Amino acid sequence: MRMENILSEGIKATPPSFVRSILKAASDPGVISFAGGLPNPVSFPQEALLKSMERIVKTYGSHVFQYSITAGLPELRQYIADRYNRVFGLSLTTDNIIITTGSQQALDLIGKVFLDRGDGVIVEKPTYLAAIQAFSMQQPKFYPVALTEEGMNPEELEAALQNPVKFIYAIPDFQNPTGLTYSAGNRKRIYEILRDREVVLIEDDPYGELRFEGERLPYIGAGKLPYSILLGTFSKTVAPGMRIGFLISENKELLKHISVAKEAGDLHTNIFAQYLIWDYLKTNDLDMHIAKIKKLYRKQAHAMMEAMDRYFPPTVTYTKPQGGMFLWVTLPEGMSAMSLFPRALEKKVAFVPGDPFYTDIQNANTMRLNYTNADSETIEEGIRRLGDLLKEL
Amino acid sequence: MRMENILSEGIKATPPSFVRSILKAASDPGVISFAGGLPNPVSFPQEALLKSMERIVKTYGSHVFQYSITAGLPELRQYIADRYNRVFGLSLTTDNIIITTGSQQALDLIGKVFLDRGDGVIVEKPTYLAAIQAFSMQQPKFYPVALTEEGMNPEELEAALQNPVKFIYAIPDFQNPTGLTYSAGNRKRIYEILRDREVVLIEDDPYGELRFEGERLPYIGAGKLPYSILLGTFSKTVAPGMRIGFLISENKELLKHISVAKEAGDLHTNIFAQYLIWDYLKTNDLDMHIAKIKKLYRKQAHAMMEAMDRYFPPTVTYTKPQGGMFLWVTLPEGMSAMSLFPRALEKKVAFVPGDPFYTDIQNANTMRLNYTNADSETIEEGIRRLGDLLKEL
Repeated sequence: MRMENILSEGIKATPPSFVRSILKAASDPGVISFAGGLPNPVSFPQEALLKSMERIVKTYGSHVFQYSITAGLPELRQYIADRYNRVFGLSLTTDNIIITTGSQQALDLIGKVFLDRGDGVIVEKPTYLAAIQAFSMQQPKFYPVALTEEGMNPEELEAALQNPVKFIYAIPDFQNPTGLTYSAGNRKRIYEILRDREVVLIEDDPYGELRFEGERLPYIGAGKLPYSILLGTFSKTVAPGMRIGFLISENKELLKHISVAKEAGDLHTNIFAQYLIWDYLKTNDLDMHIAKIKKLYRKQAHAMMEAMDRYFPPTVTYTKPQGGMFLWVTLPEGMSAMSLFPRALEKKVAFVPGDPFYTDIQNANTMRLNYTNADSETIEEGIRRLGDLLKEL
Repeated sequence: MRMENILSEGIKATPPSFVRSILKAASDPGVISFAGGLPNPVSFPQEALLKSMERIVKTYGSHVFQYSITAGLPELRQYIADRYNRVFGLSLTTDNIIITTGSQQALDLIGKVFLDRGDGVIVEKPTYLAAIQAFSMQQPKFYPVALTEEGMNPEELEAALQNPVKFIYAIPDFQNPTGLTYSAGNRKRIYEILRDREVVLIEDDPYGELRFEGERLPYIGAGKLPYSILLGTFSKTVAPGMRIGFLISENKELLKHISVAKEAGDLHTNIFAQYLIWDYLKTNDLDMHIAKIKKLYRKQAHAMMEAMDRYFPPTVTYTKPQGGMFLWVTLPEGMSAMSLFPRALEKKVAFVPGDPFYTDIQNANTMRLNYTNADSETIEEGIRRLGDLLKEL
């Protein structure tokens, strides 16, 4: 039997993650890696979480270990509803929220619920590589729309919408991979374009809480567009290893179908972890905790930008994020970041070349750098190594 | 926009779970429910798990909270390999094992990796309803093969294999829903039928550890067939709420593709829960713990069977499980268990009618009863109520 005969077309169309394929090389202790997307482990509230563990086992006993409902712990969903209502003026109840096994599962569920082979999906150019991966399983047709310093290019968006498109996938705050944030004007413009169209808007917001400069902006569609879905996570604010994300929509018909997909996918998310995060949130001040993370990431982002100013040739440009975990470097035209990668590894520094963030480009002259998982001195040293390499070329 | 235009054909083809749709009715405190599939909460080793939590946070610190690798914690995979090598004489290493977010995710991954629309899947008749659900997302064609007291009917299996079939899904031990176990002879016969065919065999074994009567039998394909996949879980032996299952194969090419699907599905399974289960396993005697669970379930199974002998009319028959969590009741021909269901609820007793366990039958005269989540007195009372109803008809 040949393997290709038994595999599905879906899995054949799904690329393995570049980030995960280089994990081994990048985890060589001598390598300074800007390739990952790891929160800084000093940001995990370990002691408080351990206290919450003891409390929930004592208080809820077997309930924290038993099978549970698909939509997730009602108390945790209520906390999320309250927080989003307070911060964004939404009108959510527990029924608007499904807890997911990390945001990644939400992407998987969205692909399953909306996409048949050949269906259209509008994505930013570039976009999050694991979203490309999750959607690819359904073999859609991607319509990439340029991402500018202002956000999605509105004219390109309108043109892309001439195609039969099921949904638009956008990351408006501190986008992965670019670190860019949509402006208030761009958000309004996109809302107006979508208002009268029959298309779902997915706003993926894993980093919104991590704004270390500027003012928070309203969502594009959440609370306003009838087919709006908002994704969030506790991976960047509490702990990623717990795999607790959430999917929000005011459209309960959509949620009903997403819930069936979730039920078929893993029955429900780890209920112990849901109790744990909920107890942690109600007995600690999340905003104070996030303030500490933001202060740390601001410092690290600035360390990286200052080092780039110092060590990179002036022909290399980069984005200046107001929050989040990444920035995006553009090399001189014609220079392939992918070809650069093995040479960077020789100099003991790693990044993610732009290619896996595009659905239609190879040998891009762009790369993603993560600044959250190394101290300022290490960041400077890594950028110096990268700068040396760039100057050699 | 009409909802049907934006939903995928896959989600439209996926039935919501009957068990979950009746969860509310069945959780009315006055109702005695045999409908669920919950382990008895007295079987969760809460104190030992709490100790393990404290130990892993102290010992491994931020590693138990950080992002982790897709295949799962190597130490936990090694434990599983060692246990299966010892008990079943397999030759597994960590590389043969992927940790999944419960067994349910394994079913989801299998559907994704093998199935395109219209591909054939052979299932037992009846089979696990959530497997039907997970595979349905890919819109396969199901070929049900009769399940007898001996196992899968070999002649029907050979006939079904004349169709273009990607895989066979079987639950050889204490099958869900029937409680039946494949005989040694039937296992051998199925192995011989499959030995020279180009088809994948999935052996789903969530209950195998819960044998309370008779001797353990070898797997059909694990360690022998080249395209063999074995599924296991800690949901029935430690705690289901942690969502820790595992997928075993000696075919590393298959595992590579399943790993890509897992990566796209949820990046990795909750790493805290993996450390927790691993630490629990290495600091406690799992076999001694399981012995207690088996003793309990044996008692409860016998309470149910004795009550059925006492209260059910002689025209009603049932299977006699040697382990696991369920037994299967057959009503007189022509009597629909689905029609019986609302009347049973009026009498404050719940079960799962046979229908959702079939891909091709409605108004079946069968029902699944769970005996693990109620004490013997409650079981007797529930069966008495059900018997009263059956005698009325």
